[in-house]
Amino acid sequence: MYRTHTCGELRLANVGENVTLAGWVQRTRKMGGMTFVDLRDRYGITQLVFNQDKDATLCEQANRLGREFVVQVTGAVNERSAKNPNLPTGDIELIAERMNVLNESLTPPFTIEDESDGGDDIRMKYRYLDLRRTCVRKNLELRHRMTMEVRRYLDSKGFLEIETPMLIGSTPEGAREFVVPSRMNPGQFYALPQSPQTLKQLLMVSGMDRYFQIVRCFRDEDLRADRQPEFTQIDCEMSYVEQEDIIQMFEGMAKHLFKELRGVELAEPFLRMPWSDAMKYYGSDKPDLRFGMRFVELMDVLKGHGFPVFDNANYIGGICAEGAASYTRKQIDQLTEFVKKPQVGAKGLVYARVEADGNVKSSVDKFYSQEVLQQLKAKFGANPGDLILILSGDDAMKTRKQLCELRLEMGRQLGLRDKNKFACLWVVDFPMFEWSEEEQRLMAMHHPFTHPKEEDIPLLDTKPEEVRADAYDMVVNGVEVGGGSIRIHDSKLQAKMFEILGFTPEKAQEQFGFLMNAFKYGAPPHGGLAYGLDRWVSLFAGLDSIRDCIAFPKNNSGRDVMLDVPTCLDNKQLDELSLRTVLKASDKEQIQ
Amino acid sequence: MYRTHTCGELRLANVGENVTLAGWVQRTRKMGGMTFVDLRDRYGITQLVFNQDKDATLCEQANRLGREFVVQVTGAVNERSAKNPNLPTGDIELIAERMNVLNESLTPPFTIEDESDGGDDIRMKYRYLDLRRTCVRKNLELRHRMTMEVRRYLDSKGFLEIETPMLIGSTPEGAREFVVPSRMNPGQFYALPQSPQTLKQLLMVSGMDRYFQIVRCFRDEDLRADRQPEFTQIDCEMSYVEQEDIIQMFEGMAKHLFKELRGVELAEPFLRMPWSDAMKYYGSDKPDLRFGMRFVELMDVLKGHGFPVFDNANYIGGICAEGAASYTRKQIDQLTEFVKKPQVGAKGLVYARVEADGNVKSSVDKFYSQEVLQQLKAKFGANPGDLILILSGDDAMKTRKQLCELRLEMGRQLGLRDKNKFACLWVVDFPMFEWSEEEQRLMAMHHPFTHPKEEDIPLLDTKPEEVRADAYDMVVNGVEVGGGSIRIHDSKLQAKMFEILGFTPEKAQEQFGFLMNAFKYGAPPHGGLAYGLDRWVSLFAGLDSIRDCIAFPKNNSGRDVMLDVPTCLDNKQLDELSLRTVLKASDKEQIQ
Repeated sequence: MYRTHTCGELRLANVGENVTLAGWVQRTRKMGGMTFVDLRDRYGITQLVFNQDKDATLCEQANRLGREFVVQVTGAVNERSAKNPNLPTGDIELIAERMNVLNESLTPPFTIEDESDGGDDIRMKYRYLDLRRTCVRKNLELRHRMTMEVRRYLDSKGFLEIETPMLIGSTPEGAREFVVPSRMNPGQFYALPQSPQTLKQLLMVSGMDRYFQIVRCFRDEDLRADRQPEFTQIDCEMSYVEQEDIIQMFEGMAKHLFKELRGVELAEPFLRMPWSDAMKYYGSDKPDLRFGMRFVELMDVLKGHGFPVFDNANYIGGICAEGAASYTRKQIDQLTEFVKKPQVGAKGLVYARVEADGNVKSSVDKFYSQEVLQQLKAKFGANPGDLILILSGDDAMKTRKQLCELRLEMGRQLGLRDKNKFACLWVVDFPMFEWSEEEQRLMAMHHPFTHPKEEDIPLLDTKPEEVRADAYDMVVNGVEVGGGSIRIHDSKLQAKMFEILGFTPEKAQEQFGFLMNAFKYGAPPHGGLAYGLDRWVSLFAGLDSIRDCIAFPKNNSGRDVMLDVPTCLDNKQLDELSLRTVLKASDKEQIQ
Repeated sequence: MYRTHTCGELRLANVGENVTLAGWVQRTRKMGGMTFVDLRDRYGITQLVFNQDKDATLCEQANRLGREFVVQVTGAVNERSAKNPNLPTGDIELIAERMNVLNESLTPPFTIEDESDGGDDIRMKYRYLDLRRTCVRKNLELRHRMTMEVRRYLDSKGFLEIETPMLIGSTPEGAREFVVPSRMNPGQFYALPQSPQTLKQLLMVSGMDRYFQIVRCFRDEDLRADRQPEFTQIDCEMSYVEQEDIIQMFEGMAKHLFKELRGVELAEPFLRMPWSDAMKYYGSDKPDLRFGMRFVELMDVLKGHGFPVFDNANYIGGICAEGAASYTRKQIDQLTEFVKKPQVGAKGLVYARVEADGNVKSSVDKFYSQEVLQQLKAKFGANPGDLILILSGDDAMKTRKQLCELRLEMGRQLGLRDKNKFACLWVVDFPMFEWSEEEQRLMAMHHPFTHPKEEDIPLLDTKPEEVRADAYDMVVNGVEVGGGSIRIHDSKLQAKMFEILGFTPEKAQEQFGFLMNAFKYGAPPHGGLAYGLDRWVSLFAGLDSIRDCIAFPKNNSGRDVMLDVPTCLDNKQLDELSLRTVLKASDKEQIQ
């Protein structure tokens, strides 16, 4: 061992001991005949002192140390005269007696500080240096503690962690998959799992009763800020359960994590909201409930008064931003610009201020009498000083989604989205299907293995679009942190589901025959849930992106810029795999 | 919840309670007016009783239950008159009052019993039924408990579990890799990791200090009985350590696992054996030390007495099998056949029996006087009743490996390889390099990142083949359960290593530039180890193959016969990946 203690360990009680530390040079300072070195490791920082008078050679050596040099230092622990109360080791210092430079370092391309001078790109290229920064390392430490707690909780509830294979079959239903050519089976491919969905269901058929796995999943999709081609799921499944059992179990897990990792006691049961209400009142299946501004529908109040935009609308709805009547004309113009952005897509924004005297002044005053505007005010229960913001449109769902964006933006502007406040809820009663314009058919909203609500099963034949599912998502602060469903365990119902989804019996058999076959041998009722580990860690760490809680993330093009992958293979490797790459002219340019 | 208790839970204390169980029908028996059903779940078996007189309809329903039907039964817990002491629930039974058939089952293709009537192939195809067998399920339960204990131990020692990416770059040095085409980077590929070796080293550069990960690894190799294309490693790395620190840490972990999972206290430090001794005395770098039969070299005794085979040999060595002098001529002929098998490759076998009177009788008596044979006996310290078995050959190493096979076979025949006995050792001081006949160059015996022994570094330039490495394997019962090394942390030494291994500087930069670059920014001294999880579980479960401790293993052709993968992709998928498959005629036939 190169050290007797870590750099975060020494206290007043150690004064007088002879110790050896090893770590990285954070900073050196010369003051008079003394040189001070801050030595850093994962556990903390300890001040080393080199005394010119005592040992000129050693002090000279210390003066030559550069940032991030790796050194081993032996000496006596001394009480500091000027203590540093901001540092756990701030009461002591190490009077260096011997030093061994274990490795030198080039000057790092950015400062190893919480507030680094390095931009995103350079920090990603030198991710191994970026990870030395305390603020980044803490995310990985939190991730470790979270997985330990998840396992502790699930183990105590009788769950078994069972590893499912990574090299499985391709299931085109769902997101695009990564495939893996098999050398031993020329011309054939494995696929990497988007989730172990069907495998965990097979484990239920096999009687494992309670399964979990913290497991890597893969999705070859165009990447947005909070997506990665590989991500980690806390994947769970239980037998002989109903929706309520699963909600209880995993609400319990969430509360356990909040308590252990954030010290937050969530005593109350989480709110439950049907999907239809979430859409109606928040325009989203993952509403951020840290703040109000519930949608109010205004067709009855505002339609038919001669304002053509509203008179022609199929939906009029608004939110009331408390205390925002003081918004200037310019601020309101900016909000109008915001909702008109292509990503939001509204045509315009109507506002109404509730003034100090209770009167309402709106941007469409010429169409509405004060009496109507007072009805409007009453609808929201608005008070003097409030600002009502209204959108309308042809399509209720589209307009609600626009209003959702506006609501979130107002929440942000008014400081209502506090990272240290947590609003948890279950969204339940999801529709079983949604219509795909692209595919011109019904698609499974969760996945084809989701159990329809018992009472809606008769509708499968007549009005499938109205069938609700035994499906549920957990939403925290507007982020979907997990979701799941009760699964179908009856092979006939599963076959019917594939039929509604447009599978021929042959296609269903080809892709999911193994599962439907398994259901014929005594499949128990079962259901489960998957939590997104990356999202949970980001949430607890207060991060804006999941990228910062992943040791070596990929960029938006799916590249690891540190490793510089993916790369081309040589022809020998391709031959062994019975493969040829066929590039379009545009791709060839891209590679050069 | 479909149940109030599990099928393994009820005891005498529950008598009189009204309970609901759910599970699988293991067996039904009609006796007089009663029907008995054994109901099974993961937790145990409970006997259900249906009484013809009490409820004829219900009893009739029970009589129609088939094996593996899934039922839910409510009734009162009753004390059995005929108790079953072999069952934890054997004191009670459930007097059924209501039953709900949750799912039916076709007759399973094999019996769901420890001693099943199903062959390997059918059990693999219906693996979800195979997993219902208690003996298979127990392996997965053990695996779960082992990973929990591993994490508990490492967490208590300050290790952080950090996930490293699965989509990384191709590193042709080492086993053959699986590759993954990137849709977003046409013509380019990721590779799946054979191990996170370089990534964990980068984590040490990043100051993570103590890392571990229970991680899936991939190897596209021809598969033997104890190999799988995907397998799981307990991967560990530490900074500021020397070999001794790592050995202490992971010997501690092994002892922890033995104690917690097998109730075996291993008080003594594990034996340590230099690689050269392991080869010399056991012909293997993973000797099975549950029994003796150490090799004795016999050139001095047996050469030059006119027996041409020995006179021309460069190596003569033997083992002494205690008490095996009673082997018949036929048994010895079978041993001779054994060593002459192509997998072993010896030309013949010489034996010498120590008879009751102390005289030695050998198969080559005409060349050797009793005096020489007595010297032979003395060399082994052999006693009356012992059997000496001798091999010879041109090449010492090859002959030792043959003798190793013979030793293991004798250990097996003499019942010395007891699955409940554990002999643990560290093999240390491995050679840094080995000569590859195929590649006609030195190859790294462990991997190119292994640190040479400090005192052997001068030999790198002069006699690289004599350089020993700071590398170590843990061997239990002749199985290599883990191994590791101190790593190079100096970019110049690493560059020299690549040079000796025949890399041009450009090639080294292209493949490992990210690592050598990282070493320039203050890499700490570090080292680590990887344990094979599958092997540990097999060892503790007393399995002959790792396959039985994996939920869904692949067969020797890398196929999952349950999922029926790998499969062909359709052209649309291949187009998106900018790929074409190029099959040889022979491959085409294989697919059809």
